[in-house]
Amino acid sequence: MKLSTKPVKGMRDFLPQDKEMREYLKSTIKEVYKSYGFQEIETPAVENIDLLTNSKGGENLKLLFKILKRGNKLNLNKENLNELELADLGLRYDLTLPLSRFYANNKETLPSPFKSIQIGNVYRAENPQKGRYRTFVQCDVDIIGEEGIMAEIELISTISKALEKLGLRDFKICINDRRILRKLVQFSGFKDEQFESVCVTLDKLDKVGIEGVEKELNKKGYDDDCINKFIKLLDDLKGCTIDELVDYNIEQEVIDDLKSIITTIDIDSKGNYDIEFDYSLVRGMGYYTGAIFEIKYGDRNMSIAGGGRYDKMIGNIINQDISACGFSIGFERIVDILKEENYKIPDENRVAFLYDKKNDCIADVFQKSQEIRELGNIVSIYPKQKKLSKQLDRLKEQEFNQFCIYDKDEIEIKLLNK
Amino acid sequence: MKLSTKPVKGMRDFLPQDKEMREYLKSTIKEVYKSYGFQEIETPAVENIDLLTNSKGGENLKLLFKILKRGNKLNLNKENLNELELADLGLRYDLTLPLSRFYANNKETLPSPFKSIQIGNVYRAENPQKGRYRTFVQCDVDIIGEEGIMAEIELISTISKALEKLGLRDFKICINDRRILRKLVQFSGFKDEQFESVCVTLDKLDKVGIEGVEKELNKKGYDDDCINKFIKLLDDLKGCTIDELVDYNIEQEVIDDLKSIITTIDIDSKGNYDIEFDYSLVRGMGYYTGAIFEIKYGDRNMSIAGGGRYDKMIGNIINQDISACGFSIGFERIVDILKEENYKIPDENRVAFLYDKKNDCIADVFQKSQEIRELGNIVSIYPKQKKLSKQLDRLKEQEFNQFCIYDKDEIEIKLLNK
Repeated sequence: MKLSTKPVKGMRDFLPQDKEMREYLKSTIKEVYKSYGFQEIETPAVENIDLLTNSKGGENLKLLFKILKRGNKLNLNKENLNELELADLGLRYDLTLPLSRFYANNKETLPSPFKSIQIGNVYRAENPQKGRYRTFVQCDVDIIGEEGIMAEIELISTISKALEKLGLRDFKICINDRRILRKLVQFSGFKDEQFESVCVTLDKLDKVGIEGVEKELNKKGYDDDCINKFIKLLDDLKGCTIDELVDYNIEQEVIDDLKSIITTIDIDSKGNYDIEFDYSLVRGMGYYTGAIFEIKYGDRNMSIAGGGRYDKMIGNIINQDISACGFSIGFERIVDILKEENYKIPDENRVAFLYDKKNDCIADVFQKSQEIRELGNIVSIYPKQKKLSKQLDRLKEQEFNQFCIYDKDEIEIKLLNK
Repeated sequence: MKLSTKPVKGMRDFLPQDKEMREYLKSTIKEVYKSYGFQEIETPAVENIDLLTNSKGGENLKLLFKILKRGNKLNLNKENLNELELADLGLRYDLTLPLSRFYANNKETLPSPFKSIQIGNVYRAENPQKGRYRTFVQCDVDIIGEEGIMAEIELISTISKALEKLGLRDFKICINDRRILRKLVQFSGFKDEQFESVCVTLDKLDKVGIEGVEKELNKKGYDDDCINKFIKLLDDLKGCTIDELVDYNIEQEVIDDLKSIITTIDIDSKGNYDIEFDYSLVRGMGYYTGAIFEIKYGDRNMSIAGGGRYDKMIGNIINQDISACGFSIGFERIVDILKEENYKIPDENRVAFLYDKKNDCIADVFQKSQEIRELGNIVSIYPKQKKLSKQLDRLKEQEFNQFCIYDKDEIEIKLLNK
């Protein structure tokens, strides 16, 4: 049987140079996260299928990787089998649902508020396309048990400083609040149950413009008056300050909180990035209940981080609402951007230690290499090849910057000049 | 529907303290691995089912987590369905098979020899029991493309120094060679096709003694003469030096290689651990072809690392044999041992920054906290509670070692004495 040597469709092998960069970026992000008092936790990549399928995962539920039951539990002789009878487990599609389960399971022993870091792979059976993978890394920070806006401030500052530490500048933090969106949709006369669907359309404002939004709302068959009022509203809001939101029935408290967050982050940014109110920011997930935020980068306004407050999600699991707010860096986007910008991680001292495989004493070669290693170098032993200069060229390509040739009396470390 | 908040059976959630220790141990191990010139790679946790089921995984193939096909590929209306028709993917049961696929797929761009690090989770649907999990971490180093014993020496030294760096001493490295085992089994008159089965029994020598081995071989119905000769051989070998192996038809080259490895590691150990030849060491996996090794620790001779040479595995995928040798630390065992020995990771400076949620200006509180963070501290902001001394006690439990209370004029950092 001929076996494929390719990784699974939509998933990737990482070669040493890529992996080294990814690990360096992850540890840089984690270091910043930790400096804000967040603590790393880990949950398994596999969760019970009931937890996954009963979550508010929206479109992601269609993309679940389900794991077949095993042994006697798997009954293939039944008629009219359905998928859910065959599977008892699945791969997680995000890190927020597992965090909620984790918190519900461990809340007695966790501090309150609890500030968590999660860095891990999630899995979605998407149709693979450029920049979209079936497994990818998310870097999440969440604060559970803090209902006040210090949570939003800490999260936004943490994520921004992590991006800054990676060398990214001039990004834009967009902020909105689900409660504002809800009031704006209500103000236009839509019904409460139409809220999610109107938001799905509004989310496309960036791409299709006001006309496009109007067209789609008409297509969805909503009341003409509501649509007209909503479209006029979008136009009016363009130059609107946060304070003027009070004219649209937005509570003063929501307005004040938003202003406090923006002012605090504005000072904290030292002018290296902007934060602004964006009434058209929606964020896809149905579980958000308060502030929502997204970071956009570059000319193409690429979304590189997103999050918000989700005060009802843990209650969905344990019937007791607990405040929660999270923010997540889209790690794969960051890697792509930094590669495009020729990001370089710091050099390490790497010595290639060459020996004559036929004539040198292996025990002595090894001992000498160990002495050089103990000086703090990375040392890798290779048999010396006949065409030394060609070998040295290859070693340079492999990121070695020094080499030496074994000699039983004296060993000289030489530079491998690039 | 009541959802379980527990992690999947046999899998674990890691709380902050556990996770911090695990990450510290992983990075310590990785740092030592890297100092020997090994380079980290990554492959997905998910592999094609054909690769998994056609591998020499032995018992592990019975423990596969299989992933259900999706969309039109999944046909549930067929009669006599079998598992393999339902699944197209599975979770990896080890890191060696994915490495072989990875090498086969990328060999044109990888250096030769290629020295890889893999640290990652593997998945086996075992019956969960104490110390045995359905997902666990392996920390592998492998050298691909080096047929000489420098590979064995580098691997054994790397793993030993990593264990030493974690504070482990007085462990014992046992070494044997599949070619010696084969000759000993042949020498006793067994047939070649009986080799694996005789080895499975010999593997139990530690636990059941020579009588137990004899009993099991009798039970398996082998020829009496062979069994008697084999049992006498086991007895004779007890005090046997490596040089005397030549009396049992072992090739001089195999003997010389083994002696060179042992001598070199003996010097390298500086007396902190031992290496010894153990003719009864078998190592379960069917794919080993040459030297095999295992590290035992403590009074209970607990196996904490294992590996060996597997020169035929990559050939199984690409029909071209490529030398390969690997060694792996059983990470979960190490964690358990170090926890029992009250291993402590280095302290970090963690400051709890307390403020009055009702009266203090949030923007100013946050700015002041940022100033303390910029001095290099980990700073976490919390609302000050009424009973301050109780709050400080809890903060101490959460590993904070300093605290300060916000004041708009002057902030004093105080020690939280344990």
